[in-house]
Amino acid sequence: MARLVQLLGRLPGIGEKTATRLAMHIVRSDPGYAEDLAEALIGASQRIHRCDRCMNLTADDRCSICLDPRRDGSVICVVEQPSDVLAIERTHEFRGLYHVLHGAISPLDGIGPDQISVRELLMRLGRAEEQGVTELIVATNPSVDGEATALYLLKVLRPMGVRLTRIASGLPIGADLEYADAATISRALSARREMG
Amino acid sequence: MARLVQLLGRLPGIGEKTATRLAMHIVRSDPGYAEDLAEALIGASQRIHRCDRCMNLTADDRCSICLDPRRDGSVICVVEQPSDVLAIERTHEFRGLYHVLHGAISPLDGIGPDQISVRELLMRLGRAEEQGVTELIVATNPSVDGEATALYLLKVLRPMGVRLTRIASGLPIGADLEYADAATISRALSARREMG
Repeated sequence: MARLVQLLGRLPGIGEKTATRLAMHIVRSDPGYAEDLAEALIGASQRIHRCDRCMNLTADDRCSICLDPRRDGSVICVVEQPSDVLAIERTHEFRGLYHVLHGAISPLDGIGPDQISVRELLMRLGRAEEQGVTELIVATNPSVDGEATALYLLKVLRPMGVRLTRIASGLPIGADLEYADAATISRALSARREMG
Repeated sequence: MARLVQLLGRLPGIGEKTATRLAMHIVRSDPGYAEDLAEALIGASQRIHRCDRCMNLTADDRCSICLDPRRDGSVICVVEQPSDVLAIERTHEFRGLYHVLHGAISPLDGIGPDQISVRELLMRLGRAEEQGVTELIVATNPSVDGEATALYLLKVLRPMGVRLTRIASGLPIGADLEYADAATISRALSARREMG
């Protein structure tokens, strides 16, 4: 039981109290439920792997986005995590493809370029099916690690001659200047754009 | 007592419960405190008025920013509220002057250009001491009203031939794409910038 609580507690957003409540629910349910859950966990973990094109998680060789003929293969949006793909898809505005790095470069945590899918991105850009790529949108987070990753990508990708852009940082939509942090206001001022 | 609670409750961030607690504290303190407070309130409200150059609140004819000879008079940052001036000053990065609109255009609330300090801005730009102004940074909030105000300023100020810029919108510094709202992600993508 303690082991179950501990393992459930590793899930994002699940603290020890919630984990205990979930574990109690599971052990009080009929045994069939625990068995079904265990089977589903193993099934999913065995079936889900990385798309061989964009590294997003999928049950097939290629994910549904890479397989969709209506997507624009000339633009690749580079993100840190599969959850970032979901966040961008919710906007319904991006019609290109993705590349999931599965992390960000973080010298403090000992994570270098080799621990994330940078090599896969370089190899992907060298393949015949990606010769139509004209732009890479670097959509790593505007955090220390995300910026370090963006700078590294700029260094290794610039020689390939493809257009590299970075998503905008500034005040979020609906925000109030009064409550924004100083770093964000500084960025919003320095990255100001011509109007009209 | 009910009247005091009601009036205190109009302060920003003060709900009915906090207002009641404050009111209880005031009536339990010695009478001198309430009198001093009342006097300070009247004194401040009589002494504080708008700077005759930038409309920020000040006890003098001109605010300390407008009077500071080290500030760069060629750039004016247009904001909605005096609190926005404080927020930008906290970044220690902006060395120009301000113009405080005291509100934003809001058709839904019946607030048009005449209810905010747009006319004062136009008149200010016409004065001899402002002939060195080369840029207006429109720093109204990235909200519906703030954007409406920015568009209106663009319309009336463009004929004056001064450079008009808008602060950047996008993901705030340190944000995580996964938790950002769709409108902000859309803006961050559409306002992306060339790297390197």
